Amino acid sequence: MKKIINTTDQILDQMVDGIALANQEIVERLPETNVIKQKDISQQVALVSGGGSGHEPAHAGFVGDGMLQAAVCGQVFTSPTSDQVYEAIKAVDQGEGVLLIIKNYSGDIMNFEMAMDLAEMDDIQVGKVIVDDDISVEDSEFTQGKRGVAGTILVHKILGAAARSGKTLDELVTLGEQLVQDVKTIGVALSGATVPEVGKPGFVLEEDELEFGVGIHGEAGYRREKMQSSHDIALEMLEKLKQAFDWQAGDQYGILVNGMGATPLMEQYIFYNDVHQKLSEEGLDLAFSKVGNYMTSLDMAGLSLTLIKLNEDYLAYLNEAVDTAAW
Amino acid sequence: MKKIINTTDQILDQMVDGIALANQEIVERLPETNVIKQKDISQQVALVSGGGSGHEPAHAGFVGDGMLQAAVCGQVFTSPTSDQVYEAIKAVDQGEGVLLIIKNYSGDIMNFEMAMDLAEMDDIQVGKVIVDDDISVEDSEFTQGKRGVAGTILVHKILGAAARSGKTLDELVTLGEQLVQDVKTIGVALSGATVPEVGKPGFVLEEDELEFGVGIHGEAGYRREKMQSSHDIALEMLEKLKQAFDWQAGDQYGILVNGMGATPLMEQYIFYNDVHQKLSEEGLDLAFSKVGNYMTSLDMAGLSLTLIKLNEDYLAYLNEAVDTAAW
Repeated sequence: MKKIINTTDQILDQMVDGIALANQEIVERLPETNVIKQKDISQQVALVSGGGSGHEPAHAGFVGDGMLQAAVCGQVFTSPTSDQVYEAIKAVDQGEGVLLIIKNYSGDIMNFEMAMDLAEMDDIQVGKVIVDDDISVEDSEFTQGKRGVAGTILVHKILGAAARSGKTLDELVTLGEQLVQDVKTIGVALSGATVPEVGKPGFVLEEDELEFGVGIHGEAGYRREKMQSSHDIALEMLEKLKQAFDWQAGDQYGILVNGMGATPLMEQYIFYNDVHQKLSEEGLDLAFSKVGNYMTSLDMAGLSLTLIKLNEDYLAYLNEAVDTAAW
Repeated sequence: MKKIINTTDQILDQMVDGIALANQEIVERLPETNVIKQKDISQQVALVSGGGSGHEPAHAGFVGDGMLQAAVCGQVFTSPTSDQVYEAIKAVDQGEGVLLIIKNYSGDIMNFEMAMDLAEMDDIQVGKVIVDDDISVEDSEFTQGKRGVAGTILVHKILGAAARSGKTLDELVTLGEQLVQDVKTIGVALSGATVPEVGKPGFVLEEDELEFGVGIHGEAGYRREKMQSSHDIALEMLEKLKQAFDWQAGDQYGILVNGMGATPLMEQYIFYNDVHQKLSEEGLDLAFSKVGNYMTSLDMAGLSLTLIKLNEDYLAYLNEAVDTAAW
């Protein structure tokens, strides 16, 4: 394992410092925590997300006006503890309440919900939205139900813009519960990610293999196959997404192609081109696109494809300007 | 080699289509070329850059209001041909002239200068700025003098903002010639990049080795060593940069940490933290920072560190909002 780090026990602390220092016009580190917090929060419902580290720029790169007000960074691939989430909630609440956006992993659910209980004892109103966009497998190593993956970024963006526009906590929870039904993702891996503390890849694919449905922590997918073309990978993933959405010609959709960490943007754009061609043939109205590394899995090679069934509100929220490091 | 592509001869064409389709509100593909062009160009000197592909998001991701008006995409690691550059110049000229921003590689210089001659025969005023920010080696496989690398992005941004503000072509050339003296970069590689047509890495580093000074096409660096900590890598690179700049306490600088493609953002932020600490100890005023994959080398692991000696103008230009996919 070759990684540009110092010691493995300093990774989280030094990364959080790096994020805060590099983006100090927008964010700050909440003292004695691993929380990245927006510096000047306007009067609104505040959004808090987070999870294990290793998915950068998620989530800290999305802290800023119009998206998240704080991101809680756990150890690599490990949920942040409840006390850290609790500190984030207290730090960002402007008296209008706090909305937690949680990826559906057992550890995250437990710790974010414990923090919610603690904050409610302080009379802070807290709501939650659980993102479970990964359609590839039901239940998984660390999950009851479906996993939360790259679609979470679109949830951040839409709910972040809605919160800024003045929606109440109840309205945001209702919007979020609908939204997570409209966002679905499927991934493919070409290699495993190496957790620094472990020092070797979490799983190994042969030089001619890929695996469909791998999670962002290297959780097993649904099928291992021989390597295939971008076009054929796109067809496989779109077939699964079509079953899940049951779209009709004329429906309006948005596309997020997300690199897992080690896959060059060149390949992501070639894959995007195949996806776009196929969805155009299906007669969909493609009104939003984003391509790049947004929810990574350390140095995993591969990518995920997220589709969102759009409506006028979602599209307007997606297109609003934000002030973040990574959107 | 595992890559998400179709056939190797379609890579450039399909990538350029993907870029244009994914960012169609901002850019378009110039028909029958590999040129990505800004859709609505205001009345100003137009900026054209480009080079071999494999460095995405450079350069096409920086086309848009306030940066480049066109990027010419060559085959992987290969200069675009002069006719492609010539088409780009003709397509973006608004009657105020065109400025070419060229990375210092023999092939690029030759083809961009030939295109310049062709355009001048059409009575289009064309100027050029040659970026040679890589201080690690003099002369190289494909270069006379120093190579042009990630610092080029800062040149795009500053000259792009200056062009939008209404500066003339002559003023931009003068500004650019000063600017390239104020931008210096040094890189480190942990692995070689695999050009798809070749199918194996351009060079191989052992599991415990790194190489300082490697270029963005895998050109040899200045020293191969045993793997070391982020802190020690930062010290080595900063020592070289200090010699080149001869900075004094109180001087104002900006920092760009650029991932080469396969190095996670987590590591880039840890490295940024080490750089920031060290430069703060040196008494520099660090007024601008950027961390991420901007000028990549396919799937190479490693990063580069660019410093820019700032002044009030540079800083204002760097901080201006732009409408591009990747800044």
